[in-house]
Amino acid sequence: MESKKATSPIARYHLEPQTGTAFSVLRGQRIRVIDAEGEQVADLTCFAGRDTEEYLSSGRTIDYNEKIYLTTGDTLYSNLSNPMLDITDDPVGKHDFLFAPCSREMFRLTYGERDPHPNCLDNLAQSLGPFGIRAFQIPIAFNIFMNTAISPDGAITVKTPLTRAGDYIELQAQMDLIIGVTACSAGKCNNFRCTAVDIEVYG
Amino acid sequence: MESKKATSPIARYHLEPQTGTAFSVLRGQRIRVIDAEGEQVADLTCFAGRDTEEYLSSGRTIDYNEKIYLTTGDTLYSNLSNPMLDITDDPVGKHDFLFAPCSREMFRLTYGERDPHPNCLDNLAQSLGPFGIRAFQIPIAFNIFMNTAISPDGAITVKTPLTRAGDYIELQAQMDLIIGVTACSAGKCNNFRCTAVDIEVYG
Repeated sequence: MESKKATSPIARYHLEPQTGTAFSVLRGQRIRVIDAEGEQVADLTCFAGRDTEEYLSSGRTIDYNEKIYLTTGDTLYSNLSNPMLDITDDPVGKHDFLFAPCSREMFRLTYGERDPHPNCLDNLAQSLGPFGIRAFQIPIAFNIFMNTAISPDGAITVKTPLTRAGDYIELQAQMDLIIGVTACSAGKCNNFRCTAVDIEVYG
Repeated sequence: MESKKATSPIARYHLEPQTGTAFSVLRGQRIRVIDAEGEQVADLTCFAGRDTEEYLSSGRTIDYNEKIYLTTGDTLYSNLSNPMLDITDDPVGKHDFLFAPCSREMFRLTYGERDPHPNCLDNLAQSLGPFGIRAFQIPIAFNIFMNTAISPDGAITVKTPLTRAGDYIELQAQMDLIIGVTACSAGKCNNFRCTAVDIEVYG
């Protein structure tokens, strides 16, 4: 399927800082994830509309694309090797597909937070729950705008996203999908300032 | 828990080429995965004995270890951030934790195989089925001895394992576990010669 030029969105979602949402899209529809203020990560995961046991697979996507950094022209695959999303427009060009969504346990272990801290996993689980998806089913997300760097010895570091206000990525659904997206709650990957994310869906 | 020196194994499993198995271990027990002939990959996955919705998480492991190449002294974590396995002895020191287990779809897409080819996902699913674990629950495995290299632009290539006959890795269970292991069925990552894997469990 070819990407059509964006006209008016058929749906919009505004994510306040440290929140998430979930929604359905049909095959062929396009989703824009927009960094409202800049330097903000958005975790995206998805499930097949026909069967939520089919889900986004980082491991198969990395295998078939033969790379860890995905951008325009690349396809995100499911755990059954079916194309789920094509990246149709990606002016930023740097995202992560290795880290698990941030979680209350991550904030406890890494940051010493005692009380539950807002986090992407809980936000995805809450948003996807009404679709019948349970927290343990949420896989490694496509961490949009997350800027990680790997040194030759395998050490991985988290850097500031390359985005400025209004920067976006556009993806086109290759099957009917249930999609979850967050405005990431973590400090380091958002340059210690958690901000809003906007989503637009085009028919 | 400290690692004790290997004495006599309490269990042994021999994996013929392109096969898999699954077994339970108790907290504190150690597992040696041995490359019988050299240059052979073994996919390992695991689930918590008390609840199979807790499973090995590449994404959390990479986060907490701050690296993608794991070796002696590193810990493999679950999707709930609990330690599952410590790597207690790893003379080889090169493994992959990014690729999904090879699958019938991978052999179709990458190698053009029309009939189902032996593969790690089916072997893990068959072996783990009697434990109540279904195929869709099998996450990205810890691909023991799989030798992948990442270039600065993110391109990932599969190289020949660094192992010779008899080389091993030893892991110690940090909770009661159900473990699945395969002798990988793929060509490229095993230098185009699929061979046997031996497993020993120590008390």
